[in-house]
Amino acid sequence: MSASLPVIWLTGLSGSGKTTIAKGLSQRLQQQGLRTAHLDGDTLREGLNNDLGFSDDDRMENVRRAAHVARIMRNGGAVVICSLISPLESMRQLARGIIGEGFIEVYVNCPIEVCMQRDVKGLYAKATAGHIDDFTGIGSEYEPPLEPDIDLNTVEMSVGECVARIEQALSNRTAHS
Amino acid sequence: MSASLPVIWLTGLSGSGKTTIAKGLSQRLQQQGLRTAHLDGDTLREGLNNDLGFSDDDRMENVRRAAHVARIMRNGGAVVICSLISPLESMRQLARGIIGEGFIEVYVNCPIEVCMQRDVKGLYAKATAGHIDDFTGIGSEYEPPLEPDIDLNTVEMSVGECVARIEQALSNRTAHS
Repeated sequence: MSASLPVIWLTGLSGSGKTTIAKGLSQRLQQQGLRTAHLDGDTLREGLNNDLGFSDDDRMENVRRAAHVARIMRNGGAVVICSLISPLESMRQLARGIIGEGFIEVYVNCPIEVCMQRDVKGLYAKATAGHIDDFTGIGSEYEPPLEPDIDLNTVEMSVGECVARIEQALSNRTAHS
Repeated sequence: MSASLPVIWLTGLSGSGKTTIAKGLSQRLQQQGLRTAHLDGDTLREGLNNDLGFSDDDRMENVRRAAHVARIMRNGGAVVICSLISPLESMRQLARGIIGEGFIEVYVNCPIEVCMQRDVKGLYAKATAGHIDDFTGIGSEYEPPLEPDIDLNTVEMSVGECVARIEQALSNRTAHS
């Protein structure tokens, strides 16, 4: 790893596979002897960010805080993996600015139709029935990343393949640093 | 160390010696092979908490966020040392509630007259001249802890003695767990 440890930032719709990929990646990196920290949007909203809702302003603040915590933990010596919807380009840019060198934007790319079919948490059913305001992709916009460092098609790729793709990018980064 | 790693929470006036003791303690624990994380109030206010001022509400939010970050880092395997003025009992109770088992409240006990004489950052001079509103001990209250786990008299004790006292308390904790 180079001077700045990486912060791997997974963005994508609810149900796209962010958390699953983050957990798989964390496990793989730990097996390689690296110390990792996983910051998950849902989990952060139970604690640090439990005062925030889902307006654009609150989502921006959600991302800002997550990025600062990621920075603190990265500076403490961990490879940090963040899984947050972070729906707007401006939010990911904010995170990139806070984290600086080492920020790796990973687009967990899954069409909303597939996310709705999966609907692991039952949230799309609730959102389409009108029971959740501001749900990403239904009542609230998701802007696909313009130039993600890694684009993972989670319809075609298995979790293992997605994790391997990120690992490869991390290896290339180390090789070139 | 017991199941829950400790979070050592240093409270006290500006200039009482919190940050110096935190750094000394962190160094000592690292020498013993422990992984540590130091969260300092001034540093947090440059990043995660740079949207907060010094009203009671903002100070409470400052403490709430620091406590959540401490919890995340402790759960990630670090002995966490927090140095924050955290002036009110209610703020320290909030932190204790968020962190739960392992919270160790350390009162960095130094009379305000001594802090004003030291005035390392020149803030007491500014505050008494009326240039800083809500400065702790001048325009804003500091409530000494009612039942701190450790009470350090930094007038009589050296930094090394303060660090040793905390180390002793950590050892006792381990022995009894």
